[in-house]
Amino acid sequence: MTKALPPTRHIVSINDLSNKEIETVFEVAQGFLEELADHHVPYRIARSTDLASKFILASLFYEPSTRTRLSFETAMLRLGGANITSADPAVSSAAKGESLADTIRVIGNYADVVVIRHPRDGAARLAAEYSQIPVINGGDGSHEHPTQTLCDLFTLRAKKKTLKNMKVAISGDLKGSRTIHSFVYALARFGATIDPLPAPGMELPEHVDRRLREEFHSRIVSKVSGASDSGDAGSIDALYVTADQPHQLALIPEPEDYGVIVQKKTDAVYVTRFQKERWAEKERPYPKIDAKFLRDEKYSEASVMHPLPRVNELDVSLDKDRRAIYFQQAAYGVPVRMALISLLLHLHKSQSLHQFPGGFAEPDHSVYVQPIGTGIQCGNANCIVNDPAERQYAANKFYIVEDEARAHCKLRCVYCETDVSEDAASHFTVADTTRKSLAPGLSTLARVPADRLKHLVIYPSESAAVEAGFQPREGGKEGGKKARSG
Amino acid sequence: MTKALPPTRHIVSINDLSNKEIETVFEVAQGFLEELADHHVPYRIARSTDLASKFILASLFYEPSTRTRLSFETAMLRLGGANITSADPAVSSAAKGESLADTIRVIGNYADVVVIRHPRDGAARLAAEYSQIPVINGGDGSHEHPTQTLCDLFTLRAKKKTLKNMKVAISGDLKGSRTIHSFVYALARFGATIDPLPAPGMELPEHVDRRLREEFHSRIVSKVSGASDSGDAGSIDALYVTADQPHQLALIPEPEDYGVIVQKKTDAVYVTRFQKERWAEKERPYPKIDAKFLRDEKYSEASVMHPLPRVNELDVSLDKDRRAIYFQQAAYGVPVRMALISLLLHLHKSQSLHQFPGGFAEPDHSVYVQPIGTGIQCGNANCIVNDPAERQYAANKFYIVEDEARAHCKLRCVYCETDVSEDAASHFTVADTTRKSLAPGLSTLARVPADRLKHLVIYPSESAAVEAGFQPREGGKEGGKKARSG
Amino acid sequence: MTKALPPTRHIVSINDLSNKEIETVFEVAQGFLEELADHHVPYRIARSTDLASKFILASLFYEPSTRTRLSFETAMLRLGGANITSADPAVSSAAKGESLADTIRVIGNYADVVVIRHPRDGAARLAAEYSQIPVINGGDGSHEHPTQTLCDLFTLRAKKKTLKNMKVAISGDLKGSRTIHSFVYALARFGATIDPLPAPGMELPEHVDRRLREEFHSRIVSKVSGASDSGDAGSIDALYVTADQPHQLALIPEPEDYGVIVQKKTDAVYVTRFQKERWAEKERPYPKIDAKFLRDEKYSEASVMHPLPRVNELDVSLDKDRRAIYFQQAAYGVPVRMALISLLLHLHKSQSLHQFPGGFAEPDHSVYVQPIGTGIQCGNANCIVNDPAERQYAANKFYIVEDEARAHCKLRCVYCETDVSEDAASHFTVADTTRKSLAPGLSTLARVPADRLKHLVIYPSESAAVEAGFQPREGGKEGGKKARSG
Repeated sequence: MTKALPPTRHIVSINDLSNKEIETVFEVAQGFLEELADHHVPYRIARSTDLASKFILASLFYEPSTRTRLSFETAMLRLGGANITSADPAVSSAAKGESLADTIRVIGNYADVVVIRHPRDGAARLAAEYSQIPVINGGDGSHEHPTQTLCDLFTLRAKKKTLKNMKVAISGDLKGSRTIHSFVYALARFGATIDPLPAPGMELPEHVDRRLREEFHSRIVSKVSGASDSGDAGSIDALYVTADQPHQLALIPEPEDYGVIVQKKTDAVYVTRFQKERWAEKERPYPKIDAKFLRDEKYSEASVMHPLPRVNELDVSLDKDRRAIYFQQAAYGVPVRMALISLLLHLHKSQSLHQFPGGFAEPDHSVYVQPIGTGIQCGNANCIVNDPAERQYAANKFYIVEDEARAHCKLRCVYCETDVSEDAASHFTVADTTRKSLAPGLSTLARVPADRLKHLVIYPSESAAVEAGFQPREGGKEGGKKARSG
Repeated sequence: MTKALPPTRHIVSINDLSNKEIETVFEVAQGFLEELADHHVPYRIARSTDLASKFILASLFYEPSTRTRLSFETAMLRLGGANITSADPAVSSAAKGESLADTIRVIGNYADVVVIRHPRDGAARLAAEYSQIPVINGGDGSHEHPTQTLCDLFTLRAKKKTLKNMKVAISGDLKGSRTIHSFVYALARFGATIDPLPAPGMELPEHVDRRLREEFHSRIVSKVSGASDSGDAGSIDALYVTADQPHQLALIPEPEDYGVIVQKKTDAVYVTRFQKERWAEKERPYPKIDAKFLRDEKYSEASVMHPLPRVNELDVSLDKDRRAIYFQQAAYGVPVRMALISLLLHLHKSQSLHQFPGGFAEPDHSVYVQPIGTGIQCGNANCIVNDPAERQYAANKFYIVEDEARAHCKLRCVYCETDVSEDAASHFTVADTTRKSLAPGLSTLARVPADRLKHLVIYPSESAAVEAGFQPREGGKEGGKKARSG
Repeated sequence: MTKALPPTRHIVSINDLSNKEIETVFEVAQGFLEELADHHVPYRIARSTDLASKFILASLFYEPSTRTRLSFETAMLRLGGANITSADPAVSSAAKGESLADTIRVIGNYADVVVIRHPRDGAARLAAEYSQIPVINGGDGSHEHPTQTLCDLFTLRAKKKTLKNMKVAISGDLKGSRTIHSFVYALARFGATIDPLPAPGMELPEHVDRRLREEFHSRIVSKVSGASDSGDAGSIDALYVTADQPHQLALIPEPEDYGVIVQKKTDAVYVTRFQKERWAEKERPYPKIDAKFLRDEKYSEASVMHPLPRVNELDVSLDKDRRAIYFQQAAYGVPVRMALISLLLHLHKSQSLHQFPGGFAEPDHSVYVQPIGTGIQCGNANCIVNDPAERQYAANKFYIVEDEARAHCKLRCVYCETDVSEDAASHFTVADTTRKSLAPGLSTLARVPADRLKHLVIYPSESAAVEAGFQPREGGKEGGKKARSG
């Protein structure tokens, strides 16, 4: 007598939610916030509802955390639900060599929704592939941390009354911080101007920068000249300027507006700590945001944000500055996560998460899939597909991303979303397993139909394909290169 | 006004439950399973009952676990109860040197029922001796894991519609796996034929093999000839053939049936991982169960089972095989544990765990008890009595097990249930502390009345007794040997 | 519509509760105890109330614990509330370098009350300074463990029917045991005679001894002669004799009563384990309390107490002695903590914790505050102010404690409550930052008004003040000394 259930939604990337869905989350969160504030019964906030009273959240944390885990667990308790927790899988089944894929299938029989934190990029996506219950990404390696971004946006929206056309400076470890990656995608989608202030050598990763420009329609504009800059993206001299309606190009700022945007005051400075667990060096030169920094006129109305925990990059004396909103940010974690959990569990009658009915739509890329061990593999050493325990459960699985001119394709790992770059000395080779033939380059791959795509194996170079048993193309390796350059 | 409470039941061994009680657990579990399935409210399974709404389960885990602990905690939550958890006693009071006996007495004031996992064989029995609340063994060293066996049997019963007269192959580390030990006892009690497929050197422990034959009436039958085999028990060539009514010998298969049994198809293949935490070597040759193995006609209808976590011994490609039921096995952990907890807490009006009213009855052995430091001590180095922290709380405590012919006795440790073997060169000597005399061997010990037994101290050899201050027997050590051999 | 809330109360020291408030806690605890005993529904104790049903307790444990944490969490569950737990902050945000001050501000947005355990003395006070919700000290370094003392007193009161005029022997590591420190303050406040039986070199810390004598009006009396002894306080030959009404000096025993007190039988022997985590040596000679020790006539009616866990200092054979009440002590942890939590959350209509309306009143000391790095700093290396992660959040903050004759002042760290001692060779120097002048000693500091006090910086010596940029006083260092001695 079970009625047809809506499909299971997973929140692995902030891009798994459309702009409209994000607004839905915020409406529900606002309701909870007001309820929490009302419920001083008699003393302080108290569990506000029994909405989730028969549900269980599993916290599956493979990395240290206090804040995120306790915030989720508090949200579940305030919804009237209950928690099961594996807070240190180093002392759990993982120590016996169990794969994430097996763990998540077992946990899916215990809980109704699961939040996962993992040191590997893309781990949450792999978990979602195997999970029968909604998976929420609580941070996976350097990849994404979408619920932190929801809290960040909710806080900004509460402060600035809108999410549109903001100017946000982001400071610190832009490379290692998953929080930043989810955040910049969301900012771009709401039409923000992003001002990167990276620590030396900690610029936004190349693939994030490229996605901002190619997928989210960011323009790189010089902070000094206001001119559009095709040069060194992510550099300290560049702003990312975006439109809030990516598909309505008319709304994208015109070059004559760039000067205005460059002059505009900053709405928020978002500070992040040095993600030392993701770097070999334990000490690096690092920017410190303090009263002196904020004395600059352009920051006079800038909210100071930080996902916490902080170490030294955000001066303690700012705690009393009216612009500091980082503890507010942490506090909003509870109602925002209450909203997300209850929506994923379909506990609201009139509100739900519709799959991309408007706003942002997931790019409609073809997906290439081959087993691990066959053909090209994700080059990101920290990607979940490169974890020996997961080899049998993951796949070489890539989005085939075509550029706007439809002239060139690249491969983006479905799990960690980094692009596979061609080597300077050798180029991708596509092997046709039915015809036993090789072809150079990926240029037309995006338009190959799915039923043919499954017979193709991509190799990083022709020689790799030959090693795998294919006949070299006529004219050999050089011929391949020639053909491609022709 | 407290009414007389029923005695506290502990589930340390699968043999603490009679066959009828196991059936009761399964009836209750089946009810919960149906309730859980009904309660898609509105989305998925949800907490199904408030039966245990005022009760607390304590999880006391001295060894890594995700699955077992979360399964118990989920069961308690789905019953409407609550949990307190000590998931890594390495960072708890145990680190301060606290004994299990003290811990359990304190926890008994907090919770209503406790599940304990411990690296030492027999730890759960020691805990039960000191506990005022029901103790459930969640796995103790290489000894037993009875609730896993309940899930296993429940899964088999759901699949095969009966527990009787099954043929089950058990593969892998039969020596180190506590899961296997509980499982084979239960199988034997329900009249199964057991087909051991051990990894080299990982046969069933001698004491398990002996109990199967001596206590559970297993017959060793050659897989090849079908003849009864008095030889190398536990070897890869032997089947254990049992009757489902151990005390009705008429039902035990006749030798002429052995051929039929040998030919019978296997109902289930039960795979276990290499218990590397219980072995010095971290790598060993190990059987892998995969599609090729299962292609054998005799496995064509064999359910594939695994207690999980798996490492490499069970091929991932089997996940899609119709015979694979290991994730089902894990899922059934919740209703089965709900049933066990609620029965131990006496939360059902019409169903309860009666102490052995039928089916299997605990052997009626005399128990020998002396303090640690006096006389013979359990020779299993991993037994809880050999843990320095527990010395003062445990005892040299043995069942005096007489063979069927009542010609010979042996000692079985009450905690870890391993037998103490006589040394080839020296024999047990019994000291009478009132008469200050020594007697060789244990032959008549089983029939010594309890009030006299307490004055006797058993030594591993006459010389050990002499060292402890007793006068050597006339004729000295040789005499003792002579007397015994006479 | 939020009505004015009562101020947030923190329980960091047993001295944060007045005697009358302690009695209130006990009355409420007694009610819960009876309710728990009644609720054998049908089996054993069960969650007794829904008083805290919408509230969350956060357990923030930076040190190993099973008993204290599970006792608090059980108390919260039995109140109908829920828990969030960070049981091993070594694998949490603390590992990322987060300060306690930041953590507590975040947790304050999740939970309604927090219990904290930390290896640093004074950590709970620092946490309380930053917390918007009630902080309960679950043990901070060697400083205090006030809820253990509440359980101890409740147990003593249940056994002896009164808390007044008891004679209590305290055995073992009196220096490292925070339990002992909270306990002796409470005993002194209820007029007890304290008989210290320290392990060699583990006497009560000097500052605890001094507070007993100076603040809690203890008299040191020779155990042998019964004479008042101005000599070696805390020595094995000395008793602390106190009055139960510290401000009614008439009730303090007269010297002629000392003999009677010395002869009086001991009401309780309180045994503590060697706090090896607070000592460099892992082995030390240590007293063992056993049947032989208790055979002494003066202990014939002495309850044997221990906060547990025990190691070897309390003989297991005493478990069956009628005087042993240590498991009772542990059991009372639940109702006592239920009472404290529910009172801090204002869940009782007719009972509350009034801030010191009677009984014990906190000494009315002036407080000196300067930032870390300026002037004198707490000399206790284990004080929270000396934790590098907390430097920016803590302060050099001292009570200026004047002796009864108002002739001399000393500095007591507000966090760890140890006194800063003057060096034999150099004396405190007070710098006036407005007048740029130095003055020797602290003698009149207690009477400096607060608005002037904030301009004064205390240095450990004149030379330290000079190093910090102040002009040496006329006549130089010697002059300073001379001035002081004059």
